Amino acid sequence: MNQNTALDLVTVALSRTSHPGNIGSAARALKTMGFARLTLIEPRHFPSPEAEALASGAADLLTTARVCMSLDEALAESTFCVAVSARLRDLGPPPLTARAAAAEIMARAAAGGKTILLFGNETAGLANHELQRCQRIATIPANPEYSSLNLAAAVQIMAYEMRQAVEALLPKAASIVTPFSSSPATQREKEDFFGHLESVMRETGFIHPERPGRLMPKLRRLFARTDLEKDEINILRGFLAACQEKISTAGS
Amino acid sequence: MNQNTALDLVTVALSRTSHPGNIGSAARALKTMGFARLTLIEPRHFPSPEAEALASGAADLLTTARVCMSLDEALAESTFCVAVSARLRDLGPPPLTARAAAAEIMARAAAGGKTILLFGNETAGLANHELQRCQRIATIPANPEYSSLNLAAAVQIMAYEMRQAVEALLPKAASIVTPFSSSPATQREKEDFFGHLESVMRETGFIHPERPGRLMPKLRRLFARTDLEKDEINILRGFLAACQEKISTAGS
Repeated sequence: MNQNTALDLVTVALSRTSHPGNIGSAARALKTMGFARLTLIEPRHFPSPEAEALASGAADLLTTARVCMSLDEALAESTFCVAVSARLRDLGPPPLTARAAAAEIMARAAAGGKTILLFGNETAGLANHELQRCQRIATIPANPEYSSLNLAAAVQIMAYEMRQAVEALLPKAASIVTPFSSSPATQREKEDFFGHLESVMRETGFIHPERPGRLMPKLRRLFARTDLEKDEINILRGFLAACQEKISTAGS
Repeated sequence: MNQNTALDLVTVALSRTSHPGNIGSAARALKTMGFARLTLIEPRHFPSPEAEALASGAADLLTTARVCMSLDEALAESTFCVAVSARLRDLGPPPLTARAAAAEIMARAAAGGKTILLFGNETAGLANHELQRCQRIATIPANPEYSSLNLAAAVQIMAYEMRQAVEALLPKAASIVTPFSSSPATQREKEDFFGHLESVMRETGFIHPERPGRLMPKLRRLFARTDLEKDEINILRGFLAACQEKISTAGS
């Protein structure tokens, strides 16, 4: 199963959303992370120009959104439902962090499961009877003194975590490699650079011939932390040569 | 150092934000994850009733926000700056994923570093000269066909990842960051060093006055990968001064 197929087996369902703008912002958040399936359960206003405006380039998710008149209708064909909730409840399904829930959803989707991530109303959240229809609760870790994420922000975090999770399931194709770099310098090139640097430091009197101190070890430590490239060594040595040239020209 | 102290050493800076509502939504996103320090660089409208409305319960972050008239002013006292950018650029600082960048920022904050996470304008993003003042670029993995996260959504994801990171990393932060032998240099000290380096490169003729080329961006990229310390900047600038002295003495 490829990545797009797994993403396509995840549906995000918004229950009883009050503000159509939030539906639009949620659609945009989903599309930025590669999700396309949106279900709206008893939306107060839909369709709506405000939703379309805030969806921006994700208006297609509104066009294809499924609108359901009840939670049961929305969940009927799914195999795994996770409710997103800021607080845990008595007798609710087992709680998971956002990250753990995302990993579980994507693992099930990758295995062919039809999964749903359910968000409640902006103010009231999900009712107990809604939570109890789900198999897990996902909680987004937040500031205990102010945990009021808006609906689209919560959707954005969960969609981001699900995308991270699906990428982790797949073979590492695009690992992080610094782009735009020239070849790494060899040890010999580095040593030649240090030799050149030290000789200019002596010529300028910056290093005292009899008391060299710890300057070179300190500079070696600095450059050891950056992986010098061939191009960079050429620039640095070109500059050192220009200093030498200027000194000898000025003195002649 | 406890968790709140580490959170308090992270500043989020928004550069040239066009829409005040986005400043408010970003403040709310930050506060939900426990961050309190907001810097606004050349905001188009601020203060603004729209920002306050969208900040909701996070209006206190707007009251205490620092407003700067330039990027250099905003970054001056920081020791580690990460730019959030959707796309990588030639000669930019080393790229990290959002998660890796968040881990590095929080590890440094936990070790006492003053760190800044920088976001650009909603439409134009960050200019190359802005990116080149930062030590890393953070990229949020997104749908390649539609990666248009709005500003507050990007702030929400990064703030969420930083909160996740601080919880995971605090006990071992000291071992993750290479111990400094002297204090880390501030942004102001780094900029003064780059200014000094460039002027000696011009004096020696290594940089042609009318065709500066891409030397300085390349050197900024090199030093962005190493965390320059105060002592190291003193050594490098001492060497530059010795070259200047030698050139003028030799010429007289």
